[in-house]
Amino acid sequence: MFSDEHYMREALKQARYALQEEEIPIGAVVVMDKQIIARAYNQTEKLRDVTAHAEMLALTAAANYVGNKYLAECTLYVTVEPCVMCAGASFWAQVKRVVYGAPEEKRGFRRHGNLLHPRTELVAGVLGEEAAGLMREFFAQRRK
Amino acid sequence: MFSDEHYMREALKQARYALQEEEIPIGAVVVMDKQIIARAYNQTEKLRDVTAHAEMLALTAAANYVGNKYLAECTLYVTVEPCVMCAGASFWAQVKRVVYGAPEEKRGFRRHGNLLHPRTELVAGVLGEEAAGLMREFFAQRRK
Repeated sequence: MFSDEHYMREALKQARYALQEEEIPIGAVVVMDKQIIARAYNQTEKLRDVTAHAEMLALTAAANYVGNKYLAECTLYVTVEPCVMCAGASFWAQVKRVVYGAPEEKRGFRRHGNLLHPRTELVAGVLGEEAAGLMREFFAQRRK
Repeated sequence: MFSDEHYMREALKQARYALQEEEIPIGAVVVMDKQIIARAYNQTEKLRDVTAHAEMLALTAAANYVGNKYLAECTLYVTVEPCVMCAGASFWAQVKRVVYGAPEEKRGFRRHGNLLHPRTELVAGVLGEEAAGLMREFFAQRRK
């Protein structure tokens, strides 16, 4: 029930909402004390704002919920490896864990070294194939 | 009139607003066709949101103004070297130029390599002493 897979399935639901709205299908949830306190999906097209990544929206919503900009007891689940911007945001929020699904070789933060907070635990590859499948579906549709 | 120093003075004004509100005093403006289209200062405390850096707020406001998430004709002026998150945001927005004042050895993006977009020109050290002075003033006040 309270497994990483469980919460990642919720993040994947968010990613599917993004796909329906013709956004790059990436979803995120933030979990504290086993409870989902924020859900978001990428809205860069709708909001015409490069900062509207799923992770950014989820971290902002989570901070609003807990009334604290630090999220040291929270886990960020995101379907695809975060970019440099989102890794930087998770650094400032000092999130406890970052769990992602599919790797993002080109735009993921990992090729720039470890940009996360020293206290942040990183878990990769949770339901990564599902997340990668949504991304492939999006780009296949767009090529048509 | 249309020099980098001119626009940086406007960013420094923003930084002083932050100082007045007991925020870390960093300000930013975005300029397109010699015109300032967005102004912002750090509001992480007020908004309780780590993503509310001056640069992020300014890039979002600029994108709203031009109705386009890409800011390829824009210059981002910021009083202090951007962090990883803000460098990442400027990457996605593909800004033409990033001009900053004071270096930020510890939290600046530069020690992680060049995280900016390949098309982005970087200019450092414009009115850096003024920007650094505001930062020193803030931290001296806070130690009291």
